[in-house]
Amino acid sequence: MSLVLNKEELTDYLAEIFPQIRDDFAVDDLTADTITMRLLTDERHLRPGGTVSGPSMFALADVSVYAMVLARVGKKALAVTTNCSMDFMRKPESGRDLIAQCRLLKLGRVLAVGDVLMASEGSDKPVARASLTYSIPPR
Amino acid sequence: MSLVLNKEELTDYLAEIFPQIRDDFAVDDLTADTITMRLLTDERHLRPGGTVSGPSMFALADVSVYAMVLARVGKKALAVTTNCSMDFMRKPESGRDLIAQCRLLKLGRVLAVGDVLMASEGSDKPVARASLTYSIPPR
Amino acid sequence: MSLVLNKEELTDYLAEIFPQIRDDFAVDDLTADTITMRLLTDERHLRPGGTVSGPSMFALADVSVYAMVLARVGKKALAVTTNCSMDFMRKPESGRDLIAQCRLLKLGRVLAVGDVLMASEGSDKPVARASLTYSIPPR
Amino acid sequence: MSLVLNKEELTDYLAEIFPQIRDDFAVDDLTADTITMRLLTDERHLRPGGTVSGPSMFALADVSVYAMVLARVGKKALAVTTNCSMDFMRKPESGRDLIAQCRLLKLGRVLAVGDVLMASEGSDKPVARASLTYSIPPR
Repeated sequence: MSLVLNKEELTDYLAEIFPQIRDDFAVDDLTADTITMRLLTDERHLRPGGTVSGPSMFALADVSVYAMVLARVGKKALAVTTNCSMDFMRKPESGRDLIAQCRLLKLGRVLAVGDVLMASEGSDKPVARASLTYSIPPR
Repeated sequence: MSLVLNKEELTDYLAEIFPQIRDDFAVDDLTADTITMRLLTDERHLRPGGTVSGPSMFALADVSVYAMVLARVGKKALAVTTNCSMDFMRKPESGRDLIAQCRLLKLGRVLAVGDVLMASEGSDKPVARASLTYSIPPR
Repeated sequence: MSLVLNKEELTDYLAEIFPQIRDDFAVDDLTADTITMRLLTDERHLRPGGTVSGPSMFALADVSVYAMVLARVGKKALAVTTNCSMDFMRKPESGRDLIAQCRLLKLGRVLAVGDVLMASEGSDKPVARASLTYSIPPR
Repeated sequence: MSLVLNKEELTDYLAEIFPQIRDDFAVDDLTADTITMRLLTDERHLRPGGTVSGPSMFALADVSVYAMVLARVGKKALAVTTNCSMDFMRKPESGRDLIAQCRLLKLGRVLAVGDVLMASEGSDKPVARASLTYSIPPR
């Protein structure tokens, strides 16, 4: 199995289909079954107290698995999230980007599953863990 | 078991501690172990295609259980989400508020668990299901 | 939407395809989108301490949603569990059957989703909550 | 952070507190924050069709995180599972042991979180993924 889109093609395609999030997320690294995504942490991602909010962490997990699937199936598919489970384990450090390490665990005919471990940049203590299932529509 | 905050007190307290979301969510109904919350759907909650985004649904589920816990334990607690699982089952209808029906299933000494079923206003077809655990810090 | 199998037909069919669990589970009630299943609690379902074990609760949740799907799609399908999330909230009472109330939340072309709330017989305090997704193979 | 029980002590302690599962599971490897556990697959773990059943996979995930927590906190604790989410991704291969790779992601004062990836022995394709939370009672 190999990538259909490389890191640059994936970045451009995400900016094209989701122009509103191009300032939120960046692809740091991409292999055939892993992707590293970064939340470019800004005021709008924070909750009271100054740490990254739950919805922003959910969005980071969701976009990581989505981007990984796109990189493998190409521009034609319109996958939709069907399930997400997340554990929130530590407070993110304030003023730091959040880095998501995502593994593609399954890419089937109708379902794709990935998991995500996220930590504040420069730390190896996991802030949150997520697993997501995407449904891949028939072509 | 009974409520410590009524609907008006809860609404005021949420506006006080989360001023940035007072235009996003409203408490429709509150009983000793259920709460109905509404996402006041607006442009900023939508994803491409015009339906409510995943992160906005996550936020609605999260705030519903948080508000329910607050209504029972009062203003003193600072609960944090430790786990969330969600199933996304149907597309929300565009241009409609999203209504979350939340049940408090457990309110223990250290953990609270609630589940949420959400549907577009005027529809009885569930759009998403969520369950969340909150950790309640020692007093 | 209506049932393809009634309670008796479903009970017989489950006994036919899963003879090894006919002494473990019983269908108490069945409607078009709910099923009540009972774990006929016995020595082999218990863990040290005398309460129902986690794997037995998982099995009860799993068979409840499976039976509900079968009752709706009939004998032809061979659905497989793709996801399960469970919250364990209270100890079951020892020496009591465990009763699962299951709702079918979605029955789509490829995925079915149900949730389950279980309590010891005679109690209304939830012991556990589960939600499961089944993948329905193409015919 | 380091281990309180080594592999042999952990194996002995598991056999002592759970004598009924000593023929089901074995500790293959143990480090300060990972454990590898094996389901000694036998007739009683199978479902119709000859592959490992869902409840047996749940039990393997559950015991893996439990054993990992025990190895770190020692014999005194009596942790209980509060949450589990699992994705079932492929059929296990019949006639093979199932190997669970577990990582301890958090060991807090009241909650521990671990995740588990399982595959049939000799294969690197994940059969299932699980994450579990344990509540650690106050001493």
